[in-house]
Amino acid sequence: MVSAEPLVESIVNVSESRPEAVRALAGTLAGVRLLDVHTDTDHNRSVFTLAGGPEAVEAAVLQLFDEALRRIDLRLHRGVHPRIGAVDVVPFVPIRGVTMADCVALARRVGKAVADRFGLPVFLYEDAATVPHRRRLENVRRGQFEGLAEKLRDPLWIPDFGPTAPHPSAGATVIGARKPLIAFNVNLATGDVRVAQSVARAVRESAGGLPGVKAMGVLLSTRGLAQVSMNLTDYERTPVDRAFHAVRTEAARHGVSVAGSELVGLVPVKALVGAAAGFLGIEGSLDAQILEWRMDAADSGPTTPGS
Amino acid sequence: MVSAEPLVESIVNVSESRPEAVRALAGTLAGVRLLDVHTDTDHNRSVFTLAGGPEAVEAAVLQLFDEALRRIDLRLHRGVHPRIGAVDVVPFVPIRGVTMADCVALARRVGKAVADRFGLPVFLYEDAATVPHRRRLENVRRGQFEGLAEKLRDPLWIPDFGPTAPHPSAGATVIGARKPLIAFNVNLATGDVRVAQSVARAVRESAGGLPGVKAMGVLLSTRGLAQVSMNLTDYERTPVDRAFHAVRTEAARHGVSVAGSELVGLVPVKALVGAAAGFLGIEGSLDAQILEWRMDAADSGPTTPGS
Repeated sequence: MVSAEPLVESIVNVSESRPEAVRALAGTLAGVRLLDVHTDTDHNRSVFTLAGGPEAVEAAVLQLFDEALRRIDLRLHRGVHPRIGAVDVVPFVPIRGVTMADCVALARRVGKAVADRFGLPVFLYEDAATVPHRRRLENVRRGQFEGLAEKLRDPLWIPDFGPTAPHPSAGATVIGARKPLIAFNVNLATGDVRVAQSVARAVRESAGGLPGVKAMGVLLSTRGLAQVSMNLTDYERTPVDRAFHAVRTEAARHGVSVAGSELVGLVPVKALVGAAAGFLGIEGSLDAQILEWRMDAADSGPTTPGS
Repeated sequence: MVSAEPLVESIVNVSESRPEAVRALAGTLAGVRLLDVHTDTDHNRSVFTLAGGPEAVEAAVLQLFDEALRRIDLRLHRGVHPRIGAVDVVPFVPIRGVTMADCVALARRVGKAVADRFGLPVFLYEDAATVPHRRRLENVRRGQFEGLAEKLRDPLWIPDFGPTAPHPSAGATVIGARKPLIAFNVNLATGDVRVAQSVARAVRESAGGLPGVKAMGVLLSTRGLAQVSMNLTDYERTPVDRAFHAVRTEAARHGVSVAGSELVGLVPVKALVGAAAGFLGIEGSLDAQILEWRMDAADSGPTTPGS
């Protein structure tokens, strides 16, 4: 019998870019699937995207911490990307068969284990945050490694787990739970970046646009196209098709049409099923009609007559 | 480690509608998931939609044959739906991790087993057909149970497996392999069924429209809407989004807009991912970017830097 096991994604951000160290870090991962490794030497940072069952992901992330803390000394680290720790940020993302509450519990378990085993101050962020001012990563990371000792003396920044002083070589770490983030770009049939910038302003949440949408206008100089580059942080509130329609409508006000679009990186399949339903004008959800999902569902009885 | 097992769908059409018999037939199914049972008493026919691994589906279908042949006597069967056998038609459909060639091989294995065990003449149809004139079900079934003895004397209709005479109570059976069929209806914002009929004529393959599209115009009298009711027999050649666009474009020529659409029954998830990609104007396939599918893929190494 086919069945879909619970699936959690974790995106582990490590302050390291030397190839042999990145290989060694990746080599610690067992029992999970390593979906992507992105290393940036200017940032002096690597991002490991992994997925698996909650327990396997928990064990793998702790292995990664162990290896990273033995290899990285943040006192010697230079890079253009802000960071507060050797293992800087670790979100857990529910993908299949797990709830956000499960991922919050996972973040707390891992946070406590990291504090206990490695003596690291741990902040919980996003959906795992214990107070509102710690939800946003940029707030937690403000001051970075170099300002961490002072930050930890502020009563507002007592860590959720671990000591109130920085780990000497590894700083602190930020662990949390969040929804999947969809990187979605729409190309406009114009070389005028100001159109893309104007469209971006109209659709992004911070300017009163669509919930959970971050957007900016950029120029793809090699293609001579302006692009509206978006992050959709909550595809259930603002589905891909709605973001697409909003960009198309705003661009049309400038007399500009859509040249195409792209999704960057990994996308949960539900986001695309939802987009298809939106484009087709289907009322309600298609989830119960997806053959593979019906196979994977928990119940097994026959349904009432259908087709 | 999560992994997706191979998945075959089978739609077993049985010439039986009495509730206790339908229950007994469903009760024989083990090791597979029964996704749907549709019984029609006018047709005097029941359709069992099941899915599972190829070997489990093979065993389950043979169990169903065994029970059906002990219960059904076609000499006593009356119903408005054409039929040639007690178990009338059995297509196998590749869903995940299996090819059409696998399903053709499965159809042949099951066909041979059915002939050997039950002494039934077996015709292979659709992608499993051994000669072109047996591809289409309506050709194989022409003459029905009552004309079967005569049909089997025609050299063009020597069965692929089994005897050249009908099984006395069970007739013959038609087994094959085909792609998933998508039942897709687009509602038009008009009560004029002639618009839907005109659109249907324009989009269907038989009138030079889209490949693999069957279409008719009907009136949804309770809603006062005309509907273009389609079967997409090959969603890779004509994806859902292309059928939708064709209907919208044709309806616009009558000054009529689309009121919405509906998918009937079960749909392979790939059909909706492909539709989303089409609507978004994404070049190429999104398959490699679906997080869940990357988890389920066979290889396990990290990818090159991405996002």
